[in-house]
Amino acid sequence: MNRQELVQLIRDRQSYLCIGLDTDIHKIPKHLLSLPDPIFAFNKAIIDATKDLCVAYKINTAFYECQGIRGWESLQRTVEYIPKEIFTIADAKRGDIGNTSAYYAKTFFETYGFDSVTVAPYMGRDSVEPFLGFSEKWAIVLGLTSNAGSQDFQQQKVGGEFLYEKVMRTTASWGTPDNMMFVVGATQASAVADIRKVIPNHFFLVPGVGAQGGSLKEITEKGMNQDVGLLVNASRAVIYAGNDERFAEDARVVAEGYQQEMAGYLLK
Amino acid sequence: MNRQELVQLIRDRQSYLCIGLDTDIHKIPKHLLSLPDPIFAFNKAIIDATKDLCVAYKINTAFYECQGIRGWESLQRTVEYIPKEIFTIADAKRGDIGNTSAYYAKTFFETYGFDSVTVAPYMGRDSVEPFLGFSEKWAIVLGLTSNAGSQDFQQQKVGGEFLYEKVMRTTASWGTPDNMMFVVGATQASAVADIRKVIPNHFFLVPGVGAQGGSLKEITEKGMNQDVGLLVNASRAVIYAGNDERFAEDARVVAEGYQQEMAGYLLK
Repeated sequence: MNRQELVQLIRDRQSYLCIGLDTDIHKIPKHLLSLPDPIFAFNKAIIDATKDLCVAYKINTAFYECQGIRGWESLQRTVEYIPKEIFTIADAKRGDIGNTSAYYAKTFFETYGFDSVTVAPYMGRDSVEPFLGFSEKWAIVLGLTSNAGSQDFQQQKVGGEFLYEKVMRTTASWGTPDNMMFVVGATQASAVADIRKVIPNHFFLVPGVGAQGGSLKEITEKGMNQDVGLLVNASRAVIYAGNDERFAEDARVVAEGYQQEMAGYLLK
Repeated sequence: MNRQELVQLIRDRQSYLCIGLDTDIHKIPKHLLSLPDPIFAFNKAIIDATKDLCVAYKINTAFYECQGIRGWESLQRTVEYIPKEIFTIADAKRGDIGNTSAYYAKTFFETYGFDSVTVAPYMGRDSVEPFLGFSEKWAIVLGLTSNAGSQDFQQQKVGGEFLYEKVMRTTASWGTPDNMMFVVGATQASAVADIRKVIPNHFFLVPGVGAQGGSLKEITEKGMNQDVGLLVNASRAVIYAGNDERFAEDARVVAEGYQQEMAGYLLK
């Protein structure tokens, strides 16, 4: 999916909601466990219930990888089930030397057909560039993450700027706002206005709303740009809103709450 | 595997060689392609031919992931085939917020049974710690990598030290030399003596010998400690030494060359 299509989708749906399918076999409703692929059954119900309210689904690969090969089968079924007009994110946080990163890019863009993949920047330019050579595909590079550990290295000063600023500023020069986004945590809202000055045009993928406590209102005020420029993710708050046979309807209620709030911000 | 067992293995075999099974379906001998699982067939032959010469096998997951589900099947068959007395490394470079990193740790330590997994440190403490809570399992944290991109961020100054020094010094305080190692590239030999002063006791996993051009002699002189403290990896130089029906014997010749050179250094 290209940038123009993504922006149009956001305008049409009055939503910049991304739903994170962090599906944990131990947290899904018990009545699904007798099905042949409980994780896919859960995801299918969540997608059916929310696909008109969001513009993206994010699959965190860790939750699937830990199930071994059947987990990858659930992942593949899920990404194939997501309607083609919705943006897909493999939240895989990959990154390696150039020849190896090229295999990761092939994995997520070609083998599984995702629109985008999250990329860890620590290994530098040749670890990121292989993700940038695919038409209408995106690298979503970790900038300032939502977790406490972001203080350990990302928020250390390198010269006159924070490491996360240097990472985002430098990495941005390797790609364009048409093939690169950044992860900026919603729990870091106080920093987002400054980040937006340095990175005016790129989309930010914003995790940390919901279970992690970030504010949708604040991140929107500080991070929105002329093309909206935000994909705000909620995972646990949406998909585990309920835990019985009505779980998908419960997820829809929460997703609709986010979408309605977003629609209000988009009108301004 | 615990540290004492690893050190004893190195002493017994007079080797600190790690062989990287970066197995690419497009690079293996053509006569294997008609077999049901060519990647596993290749790995099995390489393991059979080299298992007395090395102390570790490193599986870079990217090469398997890009093959989709059948790639994970090849990976699982391979790790199960490696003799139990040999140290196994999942070179996966994972790292995420704490609750997600815990799933990655479970993936590689429990689902697939590796002894160790490589971990990307950019997200800080809560992204690394979940890998440290497993008995006789190891997190191998990226320190100073072998690629050109290591200049972009790792070799930038944070306060009075390089970022890679800060990362290694800080990360070392979260674990012990019994559950943590560091990746230090062989192409960075000039820095290794200084790194060894800061990190005297940990094992270093050293990629970059062979196809990437690092010197085994230099990395050994600068990086060895009282427990050897090195696992030096060669991937392409060993596994693609030949490309016909004698490929496994050709791989053995190269592996034996490294082992003999290592035996010489261990005698000193």
